[in-house]
Amino acid sequence: MASSSSSSALLRRRTYPNFCAFAPLRPTRQPAASTSRAPVAPPPDHHQDAAAAAGHDPSPEEEERADVAAGALRVGIVGFGNFGQFIARGIQRRGHAVLATSRSDYFGYCARRGIRFFATADALCDAGPDVLLLCSSILSTEAVVRAVPFHKLRPDAIVADVLSVKQFPRNLLLEILPPGFGIVCTHPMFGPESGKHGWSGLPFVYDKVRVAQEGNQATKCEQFLSIFEEEGCRMVEMSCAEHDRYAAGSQFITHTIGRILAQLNLKSTPINTKGYETLLKLTENTVSDSFDLYYGLFMYNINATEQMENLEKAFQKVKEMLYGRLHNVLRKQIVERVPIP
Amino acid sequence: MASSSSSSALLRRRTYPNFCAFAPLRPTRQPAASTSRAPVAPPPDHHQDAAAAAGHDPSPEEEERADVAAGALRVGIVGFGNFGQFIARGIQRRGHAVLATSRSDYFGYCARRGIRFFATADALCDAGPDVLLLCSSILSTEAVVRAVPFHKLRPDAIVADVLSVKQFPRNLLLEILPPGFGIVCTHPMFGPESGKHGWSGLPFVYDKVRVAQEGNQATKCEQFLSIFEEEGCRMVEMSCAEHDRYAAGSQFITHTIGRILAQLNLKSTPINTKGYETLLKLTENTVSDSFDLYYGLFMYNINATEQMENLEKAFQKVKEMLYGRLHNVLRKQIVERVPIP
Repeated sequence: MASSSSSSALLRRRTYPNFCAFAPLRPTRQPAASTSRAPVAPPPDHHQDAAAAAGHDPSPEEEERADVAAGALRVGIVGFGNFGQFIARGIQRRGHAVLATSRSDYFGYCARRGIRFFATADALCDAGPDVLLLCSSILSTEAVVRAVPFHKLRPDAIVADVLSVKQFPRNLLLEILPPGFGIVCTHPMFGPESGKHGWSGLPFVYDKVRVAQEGNQATKCEQFLSIFEEEGCRMVEMSCAEHDRYAAGSQFITHTIGRILAQLNLKSTPINTKGYETLLKLTENTVSDSFDLYYGLFMYNINATEQMENLEKAFQKVKEMLYGRLHNVLRKQIVERVPIP
Repeated sequence: MASSSSSSALLRRRTYPNFCAFAPLRPTRQPAASTSRAPVAPPPDHHQDAAAAAGHDPSPEEEERADVAAGALRVGIVGFGNFGQFIARGIQRRGHAVLATSRSDYFGYCARRGIRFFATADALCDAGPDVLLLCSSILSTEAVVRAVPFHKLRPDAIVADVLSVKQFPRNLLLEILPPGFGIVCTHPMFGPESGKHGWSGLPFVYDKVRVAQEGNQATKCEQFLSIFEEEGCRMVEMSCAEHDRYAAGSQFITHTIGRILAQLNLKSTPINTKGYETLLKLTENTVSDSFDLYYGLFMYNINATEQMENLEKAFQKVKEMLYGRLHNVLRKQIVERVPIP
């Protein structure tokens, strides 16, 4: 108890500049009407013709807005790797606009998909997204968040994340974000492999860490969450701490088993049982994720060490049950038919 | 090499009574024609009426033969627990007769299914089955085999087993069985759970350890194997030693993972991933088998210890990869936002 209250005291003593004070005043948008459920396919090539007919070149913002229905969200994705692209497709299917930035250059990829790509987080924030969605890896998230110029965002913007651990981004965002911005921590518990045939029935965990009830934030938050709901996800509202407890005992254990089996270098045999085939598949899925993700699940979840200890104890227990009954000489006698001398 | 040749020498020095010398001479049956592929459902209740119409009580042998086509095999199952009953259903589906004996009383069960049940292995052997199929557990097999009065069997009988380990029953049968009998070691790599929707595509391993080419044995052996082939199994001919090498690295590892997870007492959570659900299912399937089966896979397979060691090394390697990067103070700083003092 003493250490917990002293760490709160330390947190209170931390200071950060009030980025909000530098934010330019922007007109507040009217609460957006819920978009139609019909997915809007991004038509990347037709605007130029339309613009030519209108007799002038469209600005990038006009071009972007031509893709989406009025009242649609503008979601700015920071970190546009495999997972960010995967989530972007769902956002577009629900008729919202995607803006993106990443360490790597995705200009070409984005141009073909009706997504505005920005070389820097600065430029992305200048474009004023409604939701800033962090899709960076667990390990790089702190550096990424510290580099975002939040003061450039609209004052009613929401910052959300999709990390596989939740207490870490929650605490990080509460610490770094200027007080006005909304914070929604989420974990879509699926990915490009498990979600390749759609998101129906797949769990989506969320925690509305800080959402202002006045102004547009609450509406934008619901609109953002409705993307996953309308895609068919099983919506699970849960505190970040609760998520991390459950995830350490399930997702982290699953990854650990997959990593252990990967070390064994298991091979398909002519006599695979069904159970063995599920282990081969699990191993394949596990190693298709990066080791950094697995390390992130361990390093950034305070419950993971306990689960590693439980797993080790369980292994020792099974060994004891086996070796307690084993007698090497007896085995030689039984299997190899060698008589006891 | 020295120890191997000395153990062969020990084996050669072993003696056993020539049970065959006491076997009564029996007429040799003509090679059985292959039975029709159409399954013959055992009609358990109609014989009495038929017998009454014929004006005499049927003998047990007449009753049994009324169920099966001419030329069908008569398979005597020793050990009629869950697995023996499961295999019996497949044998009956292919139109063959099942006879059974077990430590427990299955008279009622068998009477309802057109199976002749015998209180003792003695009585079963007296009935002269073509194939004696050992369906005892791994742990009880040696005692069961030593108690079978093989001298009562027909001299061209085949003895087969279905154990999940193969070198052990192979060596045991080669040692104990009088030389004339055929030996076929098999492992149907499925059970009541994985085979509940049929056996199609499921692996069936077999090794014709000793089958005489003269006389009926070869034909009976093919007829016995055709039961599994016609049920759709994927037939895998493999030496017992090879089976045990593959099985230790696949089936035994699978059971071990299931047993470790069972020790963890995993629970379904509100946020199960697909991978986690496959582990829950694996655990459930593993513990639905007895611990004795798992212990048998370990104790009676000379490759199992090495696989346990590999698994332990793999676990230690994963731990090293994680803890090598972990620094506890750093984690507290990152996750709980406590500044380094």
